[in-house]
Amino acid sequence: MALPNQTNLAMGPWKITVYNQENFQGRCWEFTSCCNNIIEYNLENIHSLKVECGVWVGYENSSFNGQQFVLEKGDYPCFEAYMGSHSYSVKRMMSFRPIYSACHKDSRLCVWECENMKGRQWELSGDYPSLQAMGWHSNEIGSMHVKSGAWVCYQYPGYRGYQYIMECNHHGGEYRHYRDFGTHAHTPQIQSIRRIQD
Amino acid sequence: MALPNQTNLAMGPWKITVYNQENFQGRCWEFTSCCNNIIEYNLENIHSLKVECGVWVGYENSSFNGQQFVLEKGDYPCFEAYMGSHSYSVKRMMSFRPIYSACHKDSRLCVWECENMKGRQWELSGDYPSLQAMGWHSNEIGSMHVKSGAWVCYQYPGYRGYQYIMECNHHGGEYRHYRDFGTHAHTPQIQSIRRIQD
Repeated sequence: MALPNQTNLAMGPWKITVYNQENFQGRCWEFTSCCNNIIEYNLENIHSLKVECGVWVGYENSSFNGQQFVLEKGDYPCFEAYMGSHSYSVKRMMSFRPIYSACHKDSRLCVWECENMKGRQWELSGDYPSLQAMGWHSNEIGSMHVKSGAWVCYQYPGYRGYQYIMECNHHGGEYRHYRDFGTHAHTPQIQSIRRIQD
Repeated sequence: MALPNQTNLAMGPWKITVYNQENFQGRCWEFTSCCNNIIEYNLENIHSLKVECGVWVGYENSSFNGQQFVLEKGDYPCFEAYMGSHSYSVKRMMSFRPIYSACHKDSRLCVWECENMKGRQWELSGDYPSLQAMGWHSNEIGSMHVKSGAWVCYQYPGYRGYQYIMECNHHGGEYRHYRDFGTHAHTPQIQSIRRIQD
């Protein structure tokens, strides 16, 4: 689990409200920190949610495993439609947690062509809906180092396909192989990258 | 159809290559301008594609109707997975065209709370993965005016859900009612907006 640093804590608290029916109906549960498994809260499935403070990451499976997806401030009235608009076969969100290290104004990321920080290198500090349009030579990234902030990398251009959340305070910011990108990563294919706003 | 202006023409040509099998296999077709209906090219379905020059918009139906999606430079090896990661029930792309007005460095957009440019107003010039995080008070936008560049608006935060492509050289840049957003728009719900890079 990420540990918040003092700077970011000052921006808290984090708050997400989840509902067991669509359109913010039914019973609701409020969370201000991580949820390891919704079952522990007698919540079988989340059908709508509101991110009220901070930015969060949701996971397909309990204990922060499986597909990942950024949850930014706003309303998600029909979670199934959102997920359908999202990924391959994710039907629910079983765990979620705040992203403590997001810092839009100071986000720096180094990417390398090959694993273990080898081959061509590029330092990013903005948002890149198409890495190839910005001059990156391939549709893959072999390894990366988050120097500050938090980032989300996507399999396809235009912020689509599998998501990988990269944080400066996880693994010391180092992602040396695509298997470090996430438990759902099975190729180094990454074609768009953006900063996560706090 | 949008007409290119001289500045943007200088950045052309546009080029997209589509394939009738996944992973850039099978027969291929190259396009450098708009395609009104893939059937006219004896192409039944597109299973993979490469955007090689410029930025394009794809449509679910022929004649630039139905759901819209930005296609930025890069590789789309399995179009069905990309679409599955995209929207509600889009299974194919029947028409597509270049976005001539994209101009990342000079993109300005005015949004209003109500239709016909009424109510609260806000001028945007950057990328907004969550409008609510940036201070917008609701999950809806009533009308908008693209002063320069081209933009993509999304139903949900984090650039997800229905997409609406907004261009300064369509409708004089004016979108006075959510029905002007696109033939697939059935609510004014918009929660993230970004510039389209040229």
